[in-house]
Amino acid sequence: MSMLYNVVLVIIVLALCYVLFSYKKIKGMKEGTQEMAEMALIIRRGANTFMKTEYKTIAIVVIAVALIFSLFVEKTSGLTLILGAIMSSSACIVGMKSATYANVRTSNKARESLSIGQTVKVALLGGSISGLSVQAFGMLGLLIILIGWGIDHSSRGSGFLLSLECNASTMRITTYSLGCSLVAMFNRVAGGNYTKAADISSDILAKLRHDLPEDDSRVPNVIADFIGDNVNDIAGNCSDLLESFVATTAAGILIASTVYAGGGFTDSAYSSAMMYPILLAGGGLLSCLIALIIVNIIKMGDDPSKELDKATYISAGLTLVLGLLSCYMLFSKVELSSSFVLGWASPWACAVLGIISGVAIGMITEYYTSTDFKPTQNLALMATEGEAFVITKGDAIGSRSCLYPVLLIALSLFVSGKLCGTYGIALASLGMLSFVGTTVSIDAFGPIADNAGGLAESCHLPHKVREITDKLDAVGNTTAAIGKGFAIGSAAFATVSLIVAYVGSYSVGEPVLNFASFVVVAGGILGGALVEYFSAVLTDNTIDSAKKMADDGDKLLSIPGVLEGSVKPDYDKMIKTATEEALRKMLFPSILALVIPVVGGLLFGVEFIGGLLVGATIVAIPRAIFMGNSGGAFDNAKKFIEQERLEGHSKGSAAHKAAVTGDTVGDTRKDVVGVALDIFIKSMSTVANTLGGVIRTFTIIK
Amino acid sequence: MSMLYNVVLVIIVLALCYVLFSYKKIKGMKEGTQEMAEMALIIRRGANTFMKTEYKTIAIVVIAVALIFSLFVEKTSGLTLILGAIMSSSACIVGMKSATYANVRTSNKARESLSIGQTVKVALLGGSISGLSVQAFGMLGLLIILIGWGIDHSSRGSGFLLSLECNASTMRITTYSLGCSLVAMFNRVAGGNYTKAADISSDILAKLRHDLPEDDSRVPNVIADFIGDNVNDIAGNCSDLLESFVATTAAGILIASTVYAGGGFTDSAYSSAMMYPILLAGGGLLSCLIALIIVNIIKMGDDPSKELDKATYISAGLTLVLGLLSCYMLFSKVELSSSFVLGWASPWACAVLGIISGVAIGMITEYYTSTDFKPTQNLALMATEGEAFVITKGDAIGSRSCLYPVLLIALSLFVSGKLCGTYGIALASLGMLSFVGTTVSIDAFGPIADNAGGLAESCHLPHKVREITDKLDAVGNTTAAIGKGFAIGSAAFATVSLIVAYVGSYSVGEPVLNFASFVVVAGGILGGALVEYFSAVLTDNTIDSAKKMADDGDKLLSIPGVLEGSVKPDYDKMIKTATEEALRKMLFPSILALVIPVVGGLLFGVEFIGGLLVGATIVAIPRAIFMGNSGGAFDNAKKFIEQERLEGHSKGSAAHKAAVTGDTVGDTRKDVVGVALDIFIKSMSTVANTLGGVIRTFTIIK
Repeated sequence: MSMLYNVVLVIIVLALCYVLFSYKKIKGMKEGTQEMAEMALIIRRGANTFMKTEYKTIAIVVIAVALIFSLFVEKTSGLTLILGAIMSSSACIVGMKSATYANVRTSNKARESLSIGQTVKVALLGGSISGLSVQAFGMLGLLIILIGWGIDHSSRGSGFLLSLECNASTMRITTYSLGCSLVAMFNRVAGGNYTKAADISSDILAKLRHDLPEDDSRVPNVIADFIGDNVNDIAGNCSDLLESFVATTAAGILIASTVYAGGGFTDSAYSSAMMYPILLAGGGLLSCLIALIIVNIIKMGDDPSKELDKATYISAGLTLVLGLLSCYMLFSKVELSSSFVLGWASPWACAVLGIISGVAIGMITEYYTSTDFKPTQNLALMATEGEAFVITKGDAIGSRSCLYPVLLIALSLFVSGKLCGTYGIALASLGMLSFVGTTVSIDAFGPIADNAGGLAESCHLPHKVREITDKLDAVGNTTAAIGKGFAIGSAAFATVSLIVAYVGSYSVGEPVLNFASFVVVAGGILGGALVEYFSAVLTDNTIDSAKKMADDGDKLLSIPGVLEGSVKPDYDKMIKTATEEALRKMLFPSILALVIPVVGGLLFGVEFIGGLLVGATIVAIPRAIFMGNSGGAFDNAKKFIEQERLEGHSKGSAAHKAAVTGDTVGDTRKDVVGVALDIFIKSMSTVANTLGGVIRTFTIIK
Repeated sequence: MSMLYNVVLVIIVLALCYVLFSYKKIKGMKEGTQEMAEMALIIRRGANTFMKTEYKTIAIVVIAVALIFSLFVEKTSGLTLILGAIMSSSACIVGMKSATYANVRTSNKARESLSIGQTVKVALLGGSISGLSVQAFGMLGLLIILIGWGIDHSSRGSGFLLSLECNASTMRITTYSLGCSLVAMFNRVAGGNYTKAADISSDILAKLRHDLPEDDSRVPNVIADFIGDNVNDIAGNCSDLLESFVATTAAGILIASTVYAGGGFTDSAYSSAMMYPILLAGGGLLSCLIALIIVNIIKMGDDPSKELDKATYISAGLTLVLGLLSCYMLFSKVELSSSFVLGWASPWACAVLGIISGVAIGMITEYYTSTDFKPTQNLALMATEGEAFVITKGDAIGSRSCLYPVLLIALSLFVSGKLCGTYGIALASLGMLSFVGTTVSIDAFGPIADNAGGLAESCHLPHKVREITDKLDAVGNTTAAIGKGFAIGSAAFATVSLIVAYVGSYSVGEPVLNFASFVVVAGGILGGALVEYFSAVLTDNTIDSAKKMADDGDKLLSIPGVLEGSVKPDYDKMIKTATEEALRKMLFPSILALVIPVVGGLLFGVEFIGGLLVGATIVAIPRAIFMGNSGGAFDNAKKFIEQERLEGHSKGSAAHKAAVTGDTVGDTRKDVVGVALDIFIKSMSTVANTLGGVIRTFTIIK
């Protein structure tokens, strides 16, 4: 079996080689005019400064938590936690660095070639560096642990100082996942604050206070906004999906152990069940690599979304084939229990369900947020009745859009459970994430195209160039919305798997979390309210920072010559403010997810935390979809009016003003709160998984 | 024991006598000027027409559902279902009729006496008719069933046509509760649509389109708005809290049965446990009656909220004493299990927890929504930054305000579970609702005062009179917000009890609802999304109706002479539109709550529905609090600016405009969606409780 690990390792190495190759290729491209190069340098430097400052804080927290684990829980688990943080950070840093090179080269390619197809290729090549890094680094760390220590059911571990009853090999896997989780949490919270405080404040300055066009480089906040796109939409997204991917793979392995412990697997079926998640993910990585190379080689047409879809379909299709082959290889010759309804093909069928759900959720998201469909068009129409109507209608669209994605998730859970028992749930989750490399690549295309458009605007490139970048930007908006849907869907699956693994970790016999028990119900409703509270903290932080940045920006704009365009505004000062605000407001909400399960668990016990996790998940899923989709619909309803597609109303009309209000409300929803909710529930579940044993031992109120 | 039933029956009869006496007393008061009498007549007639038309539809649905129950489930349960609908309707009709008499008499008392204290007395006397009716009618029906049929553990029932395994006496209690639930659902959904479509459309006409003052009688929608206050805030609220009260009492009895069946009670403890909910509620009713008589007799000062608080404290205090006495009487001489941690006083201690939670939740609600505290003041300040900021801040306040009420509920559940096991949860819920008579009385004070103020405004009464009614109106706003908090809190408790009773109804042995099982999890996340979907449907319906009513109102205003005030607008036509819109849009969302548990259960089984109920409850609790509190804060932030308490900004300023936008967004949230969410979860849980047996027998996918 362990030979198979090496096969996957080879795939990872191949993927990382391609990442390196692409990175060099991007870096070797021309940057364009001197103004473009200068602007790009400011963005790159700003992003790097932010990451450096942020990672100092993250490093302290990670090392502190790692020490606690090694001293008090299990010796090696501090190491694996740090490994997780390193892997996640590597993917983020590689992704963000390449994106800040790719943005200006994308605008320049548009300028030089005037070809949509060639421009898309540059942006997608930049994006694929992020995508492949996420999947490759995520798997690399996990394989290091599996090859280095293996999985041993009977290995008892203890900390250097304290001896707690826990399984060392389980601890290593869950703390690895926790390391990824910590980085993701900080990235999301800080990134969201950075990008939206910058975005909202530049809107206030440009539109409300000084009547300047969007993305005007005289407003210093605009640069912070460009940087923010990279910080949140690249680094935040990479670490978020890396964590989902790792957590799901880990949950697959843990659940297989629980099922085995409960007598659900024979010995041979068990080792196959442990291996399948790794092979499925490895096959997925290979598929993404092939798909991304193909779309990089072939000639591209003028419809960017078609080209992006090609990458998705090739990856998903290949993953299906490789998943089937490895499933046959692993399960066809071992003795299976009757719970595998479709025999050896059952695990694969579950993965297929996950893949289909992932793609379908993307399509539903597109329906609710794209200007081509009724909901967003109706929202634009409502704008003619004023602000209150557009907000109320947007709320309704967001709430309505939850039903079908959740129905899909629920059905997939139900059917995969029927096909394969609890193990099936883990596989459906993993199926959805198995080609995450391509998903993230396409997702990262968005901010690169967005930055490219912004650079074209603020460096006053010719109208024809901006037409191309605008087209890419519009596609990027849709892929961003789809990516959000996907992130939430996968987080839902991942969290359910994690909760099941958690309950399995402390249950004796069949895992039971009884919601007819008052302890669990109390935890459940509290978990739901915590999600609302977390949302409120993030929202308040963002508007506070936005207000501060708008006031600071106003001061910078009032320096003589800046508004006239003869003096460059002090970008560095604004970037410093944005960084400081984001970091100052990062700690409290990020630590919440760490502290709640520990404190709640020590006070009221493991079952209370089980309830709390379920409650938080059940509330966070629809809330995150609401935030993402209402925000997306607001954004595009505004665009719909700007594109003069609403008869009798155009830019500057009362309806447009109302739509802009909607868009600003949506900004915080979709890019701060919505995207942070999924990492909030994943982090809490991961923490619970690492500490189930400790909590059980030290519960105060029994 | 059954002698005790008669004691409670006497209390009920006394309460109903006082209701009759007060009704006659109100009706005997003077109406004031001819204009006032005319206006009041239009409101009264409009409200009556609406109720008549609405009840025709309700009657059809109730009779159809009753027939299904009698034919296919249990013979007598159709009858008890109709009994529930009749009791609930009686309370609503009595309450609404008295409110539509009391409104004009309140303005007239202000006009004649120019005394705040005397005016408050009239409004509160009107309100107490609603309050006492709710508790008295709710208990009357239940006692009829208990005295008529008793409770028999072994009574097997069957329908006329089909023989299903079910307990007849349980069926009678749950269908009684379902009858109340159906009426409440329709009242809430239709009432919310009626009142808010009227309110929003009259705002659009007065403020946006014609620049007229609020409550100007030239705008025909204003009258519909006055009627709406009675329809939603009186009838809707009465039926909602009656249903919470009945459902909780019923759940207490059912849970006692389940605990007994599981061996948790000795025979003697069991009969005490069955009796205590009835005695506690009876004691509560007596306390409310005494408190309301006292505040009606004593001389009232000039601070209305103090006078209202007196009623609350007397009722709560007396209930505590009577609850303790009856607890001693029932439990001190029977053999108790060790799960009663505080011995015979354990049930009482749980009830106390509920009472404290109820009062505390009211105080928290006041903190987040009153102009006297930071949150609403900050919201008003945010209005200076424009619409987008005020909405975003309001969202944050709403989300943040969920934490403490839910923490209180969770703690009460936890502690009462520790004190008395599952039975304790039911008692905490009942404690909170035991003095519902006074709570509803104070709640009903709000719309009466609101109507009185509106009448004073539109009949151009002297400034001094309007000062008094304004003061009452302001207090009414706060009591309304507190009432909403209370309604949600009690619904949370009631639903948890109902879910536990439901799980107990189909479980063999200890009730278990396992959230580590994929079927239950699938149900759970779907339940959460259904709450969002239901909210979206209500929101869309309201803004659609508001748009239609604004356009219709515009047509009526354009008739020559109307705007000049020389010709009365065609009120009847507008009232007809409002009624039709509300009824047309009532059916779909109301039926949802009936159909979902049945269809979902028949497809996926009892456990799936268990999960669904939990999911819906966990999402609905914070959502309802969010809707109520963000709406309340928006409303009062606007008032804060209108009261010139925000320096440099007053009525008509840009900040005020932004605050008005917030208020309009909040209208739908607090008076349509928020208040309907609690009845949505209660109804689904009640339906599930009645049909657990059927679902278990006929599940399709097993």
